[in-house]
Amino acid sequence: MKLQELNARGQSSVSTVSSTRLIRARSKSINFVSTKYESLDYDICENMLVVDEERSKGYNYIMQINIIRYILFLVIGLLVGLITLFIDFSIQFLTQPKYRILRVLTDECHKHCYIYLYVVWCLLVMVPTAIGSFLAIYVESESSGSGVPAVLCYLNGVSMPRMMTLKTLVCKVAGVICAVVAGLGAGKEGPLIHIGTIIGGLIPSMNIPNRKISSYMNYFQNDKERRDFSAGGAAAGVAAAFGAPIGGVLMSLEEGTSFWSVLLMWRIFICGIISSFFFNFFLSWHHGHSGKMAYDELFFFGKFSDAELRYEVFELPLFILMGAIGGLIGALCVELNMWLTVFRSRFIKKKWQKFLEAMMVAFITVNFGVFSIYAMSNVCLPVNYRPDNAVQVNCKENEVNIQSYFWFQIQENMLKHLLHSPIAVFQAVPLLVHLLLYSIMILLTTGLSISAGLFIPNLIVGALWGRLFCIGLKYLFPHADWIIPGKYALVGAAVQLAGMVRCTISLSVVVIEATGNITFALPVMFALATTKWIGDFISEGVYEMQINLRGLPILPTDPPPLTSNITAEEIMSTSVVTIPTCVVVAEVLAKLKNTNFHCFPVVGQSTLVNTQDPDFLIPYGQLEGLILRSQLIVLLMNKAFEESHPADFETRLNMFRKAYACQQVDVESLELTTAEKEMVLDLRAYMNPSPYSVRAVTSLPRIFRLFRSLGLRHIIVVNNVNQVVGIVTRKDLARFRLWVHRGNMRLKELRVHS
Amino acid sequence: MKLQELNARGQSSVSTVSSTRLIRARSKSINFVSTKYESLDYDICENMLVVDEERSKGYNYIMQINIIRYILFLVIGLLVGLITLFIDFSIQFLTQPKYRILRVLTDECHKHCYIYLYVVWCLLVMVPTAIGSFLAIYVESESSGSGVPAVLCYLNGVSMPRMMTLKTLVCKVAGVICAVVAGLGAGKEGPLIHIGTIIGGLIPSMNIPNRKISSYMNYFQNDKERRDFSAGGAAAGVAAAFGAPIGGVLMSLEEGTSFWSVLLMWRIFICGIISSFFFNFFLSWHHGHSGKMAYDELFFFGKFSDAELRYEVFELPLFILMGAIGGLIGALCVELNMWLTVFRSRFIKKKWQKFLEAMMVAFITVNFGVFSIYAMSNVCLPVNYRPDNAVQVNCKENEVNIQSYFWFQIQENMLKHLLHSPIAVFQAVPLLVHLLLYSIMILLTTGLSISAGLFIPNLIVGALWGRLFCIGLKYLFPHADWIIPGKYALVGAAVQLAGMVRCTISLSVVVIEATGNITFALPVMFALATTKWIGDFISEGVYEMQINLRGLPILPTDPPPLTSNITAEEIMSTSVVTIPTCVVVAEVLAKLKNTNFHCFPVVGQSTLVNTQDPDFLIPYGQLEGLILRSQLIVLLMNKAFEESHPADFETRLNMFRKAYACQQVDVESLELTTAEKEMVLDLRAYMNPSPYSVRAVTSLPRIFRLFRSLGLRHIIVVNNVNQVVGIVTRKDLARFRLWVHRGNMRLKELRVHS
Repeated sequence: MKLQELNARGQSSVSTVSSTRLIRARSKSINFVSTKYESLDYDICENMLVVDEERSKGYNYIMQINIIRYILFLVIGLLVGLITLFIDFSIQFLTQPKYRILRVLTDECHKHCYIYLYVVWCLLVMVPTAIGSFLAIYVESESSGSGVPAVLCYLNGVSMPRMMTLKTLVCKVAGVICAVVAGLGAGKEGPLIHIGTIIGGLIPSMNIPNRKISSYMNYFQNDKERRDFSAGGAAAGVAAAFGAPIGGVLMSLEEGTSFWSVLLMWRIFICGIISSFFFNFFLSWHHGHSGKMAYDELFFFGKFSDAELRYEVFELPLFILMGAIGGLIGALCVELNMWLTVFRSRFIKKKWQKFLEAMMVAFITVNFGVFSIYAMSNVCLPVNYRPDNAVQVNCKENEVNIQSYFWFQIQENMLKHLLHSPIAVFQAVPLLVHLLLYSIMILLTTGLSISAGLFIPNLIVGALWGRLFCIGLKYLFPHADWIIPGKYALVGAAVQLAGMVRCTISLSVVVIEATGNITFALPVMFALATTKWIGDFISEGVYEMQINLRGLPILPTDPPPLTSNITAEEIMSTSVVTIPTCVVVAEVLAKLKNTNFHCFPVVGQSTLVNTQDPDFLIPYGQLEGLILRSQLIVLLMNKAFEESHPADFETRLNMFRKAYACQQVDVESLELTTAEKEMVLDLRAYMNPSPYSVRAVTSLPRIFRLFRSLGLRHIIVVNNVNQVVGIVTRKDLARFRLWVHRGNMRLKELRVHS
Repeated sequence: MKLQELNARGQSSVSTVSSTRLIRARSKSINFVSTKYESLDYDICENMLVVDEERSKGYNYIMQINIIRYILFLVIGLLVGLITLFIDFSIQFLTQPKYRILRVLTDECHKHCYIYLYVVWCLLVMVPTAIGSFLAIYVESESSGSGVPAVLCYLNGVSMPRMMTLKTLVCKVAGVICAVVAGLGAGKEGPLIHIGTIIGGLIPSMNIPNRKISSYMNYFQNDKERRDFSAGGAAAGVAAAFGAPIGGVLMSLEEGTSFWSVLLMWRIFICGIISSFFFNFFLSWHHGHSGKMAYDELFFFGKFSDAELRYEVFELPLFILMGAIGGLIGALCVELNMWLTVFRSRFIKKKWQKFLEAMMVAFITVNFGVFSIYAMSNVCLPVNYRPDNAVQVNCKENEVNIQSYFWFQIQENMLKHLLHSPIAVFQAVPLLVHLLLYSIMILLTTGLSISAGLFIPNLIVGALWGRLFCIGLKYLFPHADWIIPGKYALVGAAVQLAGMVRCTISLSVVVIEATGNITFALPVMFALATTKWIGDFISEGVYEMQINLRGLPILPTDPPPLTSNITAEEIMSTSVVTIPTCVVVAEVLAKLKNTNFHCFPVVGQSTLVNTQDPDFLIPYGQLEGLILRSQLIVLLMNKAFEESHPADFETRLNMFRKAYACQQVDVESLELTTAEKEMVLDLRAYMNPSPYSVRAVTSLPRIFRLFRSLGLRHIIVVNNVNQVVGIVTRKDLARFRLWVHRGNMRLKELRVHS
């Protein structure tokens, strides 16, 4: 059958560009664009129904929609704040007994009970890990990892179907609690961004019993509005996680969004403020400082005084040096992580293997803890430095084992101690040992099948080597009074994280907001700028790496340079299935069932005679409009071809919006009688009458900019007389990727397969 | 002649839309879009030359261009920092003797010398005002005012020819020094944004003797690159003015740019950091704290300690109330300002009138000062509150006149005192009197023909009523210890400014950065959010108001709502002048001289026979490409039609880039012989082969989004078979303006005239 052939052709053969400057990706599986992922459609279909609706509704309606939109943003902010609080309290509630048990057992254990201690320790780490990885492997695999790459892709315009469900939300919340309670090298901040995004995406699709409100809510049932709410949720997640509303807005802008408007930025900002306000409000109340919103403990890094962060201008080169180190370490980590991810994708494929891997990592974590406490049992610390659950082991009466200090508390507190303790507290050797063990731990944990973020672990690693750097300085300049460990640990933490994730501007704002101190902003910015330069020179960021390895068709900010000589003709797919404006139902059904294309150009019967220069491209007919697969299915489902089908725009629009909210767009479920199949469907009211189209000579950068700035899913390629000759989708563009590696720049053309 | 007719038609009759929901603007001159302003073209013309260039240059070239771009951003940041420093030092250098003379005269004057004092005072205020307004009126009128509206329009894509010249820069710098030294209600911060923008625009067009570097610099000779550098300069201006690099980036984003990319944001950020670093570095050195970059005095608002800004959660409603007051006052100020601007545009048209007005305002300023010092000569202040140049008049030995405290120091210091002094220092009556007089002063000064910003004056007004608010609270709750005047003055200052300019997010960051304190961020954000809501509900911001009054064709972020029923056909101008791909020089010359169109669609000879549905629009021929007026002039100037014209792309591209840098594009200067006029010019290599085009049925929002996100200057409207039928320009879109006023929302269709 012709249609099936076309379909097969569209699937397998993507036209290739012959350019000498292209390096064709080799058959290595790590360089590809996956066909598994569809795009979102941020372009609103302005068909006749929408025009009719606008004509009937006045500006008051727009005002009401605006108010409801703000209310939804407030609700999202509030919910994200409350869920963050729930996670925070759950972790505290579960870790306190855990570390108390371990402390008591260690303290009371001499000689024969070691095995008992060891077993309990293993259980306390491995049981939560088992639960967490079970959720991420067997229940919902989208809840695995930090979820940030998925959020980035979603905001970029890639459809991530299972990323936004209630199931994922629940698994994510439970999973992240388990991972943190287990004490793996895992943070809750990354998952919180994902959680915020889910809440942002789910709230507008809520089923509200009130008819009036639900009629308003219908307005938000499209990809564009949902994306805006999700961006707000993501910002609220960062805002609550770090207590950094402005940082949240900037991170949402810097990392995520391919679109931007002042209005959206402002709505996201509101969302972030509300979320961090409620989180901090309840936290301050919990800490017994109810109403004191600037209470020191509320700051994510702990409040820094100006004295702790005073610096001289001659220290700037030192901070810049640290930034460079951070960039190098970051790039190395990204590289190592890539190897490990590739290894995992090749050898750890089955579910039980993944589960086993998680248990192995948990087991290694326990052994690292046991090893470092007992192998270094004679390195002690005076007891007056806030010992929490630290144990004594072989130390003297008033001292505690320093390694237990690292292992027997949650990582947020550990980080605060690393940032705020005087230089004498942590000596070089214990820091070095912990740095080594912890680095291995987080390397293994990143990419593990459990809901875990990499923010906190990287901040800790950075703070560890930042302190080591400071100790080195103290060794060189023993009498200098400007050597304060806190500021070096802070710069280390910031640059280590920036070396991994490369979102420099938002990170500097987060550092300012999380330390509660602005006087130190300048050195942090200098250091972070250096990190970004060095890091980007060597490799991409960890999220981009993860996205690329999954073959997600993400579009970068700018088109790859030097591609003006590639035209639409070369990149487009020439297999297009068109539909006439008035079409027999059977034909629609056949086209839906036999192809998997997501859009069908609507063509008129072309009676044009092209007398001159016959184009070598076979034209498909005069472009009249565009109709989506989902629209066609909804039309068939609702039997829009029948005479009795209601003609008012409200009913007609609602059937599309309801279908969007319920995500019920399955061809197979369509059941039509033979009589129905012979009826004629008039598409003119439903199709998009002015889809974006380009001529075949248009260059890649122009198409890229259209895609990127308008959030398109597909663009129709027409010939000189406006006849359809092909179609360009997101994947056709995402295949061309700029590859920067150790200062070399090249264009890669990736393969497209599943 | 037919062409001239067409031209006249294009000028006068803009097609009008017949929609019942439109309210046609009445003949009031304040509702119009001016034809005086052209658009910028941010869309890069990817013609064959550019493709050839890309083909010949490798990725190394791109890398080198990137490095040079960063260097240029660094240079811009550095220069902006240094110029800010120069302005700052000049003001200090000139105001110190001024206020010393006034103090000495006032102190030593009893009875008979009052007239002498009065004359000296008048001279000290009126002479700098005269110089400043002379510069702004007779030398360069673009240097008048804050320049921020011009910057906003430029970044939005409106061509502001004289805004970006060296002359404007010099006048602006000298003018702002004069205005501040005169002691008018004028700040230097707004003009600094303009100054930064000019530097950003000028640097890439510099003439560099080195041939290699200048060949790289050629690359930046287009509107898009220049806009990016200007955005960096604007951010650097804010960064240096307020010591707020992040605030600068956000303000550049929030207020200015219609485009956005992570890469650009990052470059702007670098520019801001460098600018504020160098400014602070030299300032700390000047203050004798060399190397202490976090020295308290460096903060624009003076460093706030946590104790000064501690707050309880129950104060939030108070801050929100202040935000609401700020929104109301702000809207009122905008309204008053609008009346005054309209009054000025009607009755103060001539240059001497403007000059006289400036002198009048200066005279009023002096009289306000004299009046308040002598009328309230018995309101005194203990001398221990940093009296600077305050005088005694009728006060006791250890006291000074409180009003002289307001008048005898520069406004930045005044603001710091208002923010940091204890509550007892300023009593209600002096505050109220100064608030009244100062408000009148800044109302008169805003819009005056002198280079003056409104940031500082509004911050002072806000701080004044913020302190009054605090005194009111103290009266209600005499024993409350949470009533600290500093925080209320700060919130007042922030909301007053936000009520005027409405850039809430960047302003909250600026407040954080300028106070050196983050703990107070939350209340500020809540207050600012309220201000924005209330303010936007009532009126637009002051800059938008000024832009609208000048009829500048700015495009807002989003298309006006409910305009899907307006199509390209209705808004386009149908008078188009097309050019064939190969054209006789005489024809080009005639078309250039007889029309003032800025773009000419290039059409092929259409041999298509449209057998069906003859369109009612007269088609102009098959669209092949687009050529700009400026390109045609350059081609004729360089005699590109001659056989001997060099065929290599480098020479050809350079002729366009040089012409851009020198801005030499005048038709009248073209002199061609009769033989030359008969030659044929082949446009195929020069034209843009794939201009953006839309079909006549495309709706206004779709065209709007294309314009806004791609930075277009014009879009070609084609019919069903890709024949040119019309053209839509920025002004055709800018005519449709959403009008929100006291909660009502309407669409206005503005008239287009000069």
